[in-house]
Amino acid sequence: MKSAAKPRRSTCPFDYALEVFGDRWTLLVLRDLLFSGKRHFREFCASEEGIATNILTDRLKKLEAWDMVSRSRDPESGRQVIYHLTDKGLALTPAMLEIIRWSAKYDPEGCASTAFIRRIKRDRDGLVAEIIAKARRARRDSPEQSD
Amino acid sequence: MKSAAKPRRSTCPFDYALEVFGDRWTLLVLRDLLFSGKRHFREFCASEEGIATNILTDRLKKLEAWDMVSRSRDPESGRQVIYHLTDKGLALTPAMLEIIRWSAKYDPEGCASTAFIRRIKRDRDGLVAEIIAKARRARRDSPEQSD
Repeated sequence: MKSAAKPRRSTCPFDYALEVFGDRWTLLVLRDLLFSGKRHFREFCASEEGIATNILTDRLKKLEAWDMVSRSRDPESGRQVIYHLTDKGLALTPAMLEIIRWSAKYDPEGCASTAFIRRIKRDRDGLVAEIIAKARRARRDSPEQSD
Repeated sequence: MKSAAKPRRSTCPFDYALEVFGDRWTLLVLRDLLFSGKRHFREFCASEEGIATNILTDRLKKLEAWDMVSRSRDPESGRQVIYHLTDKGLALTPAMLEIIRWSAKYDPEGCASTAFIRRIKRDRDGLVAEIIAKARRARRDSPEQSD
């Protein structure tokens, strides 16, 4: 853990999880990385929740500090920075899918696709493996950047 | 949904989830209800994170408004109020277990028992069913209170 985090109030697993991603904007950035294939700063900005650029900058930095996100140069433009989930970030996939499944059941206004929910119910582990493999392939295609 | 919630910014499943439980104290109360068998107000207060009584009162009210928690009279004392997870609250069990599993893997200071983590890995669905059945039994033994 690279972050200069505040002293822990407990050693509870939920306390750790909340430190890392228990913030509305952080979770929405993780969602964009995991399910929407977004990679560029401007793409996160364009999400319908309307994240402010200063908040986005802050959350991306925190996610990097927690080793959830890494940066690389866009192999297409060669100059732009793109963001990826690390393996630690990708390991949240099962939890994220379970949250989607729960919301789909109880939120009357939710927009999760019924095909996606059916897939979570019928083949959750296969879906997890597929999402992680796809994200790793995209990460391999763009060399990491540490500065 | 009984809550007079703020207007939704999106119909994203994560946005809904964050509305309902995306708050540090709310998640810790859910943890206490789900995994620690806590039922009384004073028991939540005694958790090591040290929740303030006014925050606890607020979060329990919100959880009731979202139909996540119900109240009943303690069948033993007959006067004290006890809190239970509703079926909607209990349906978060798989997501909560996945969060525990993730934290156990990445948090060097985490205190989750290795036996519990092993059980999640080997028989997650069985564990979910067991936790929910136990909570439902406890709820049945104490008649609901709506006032």
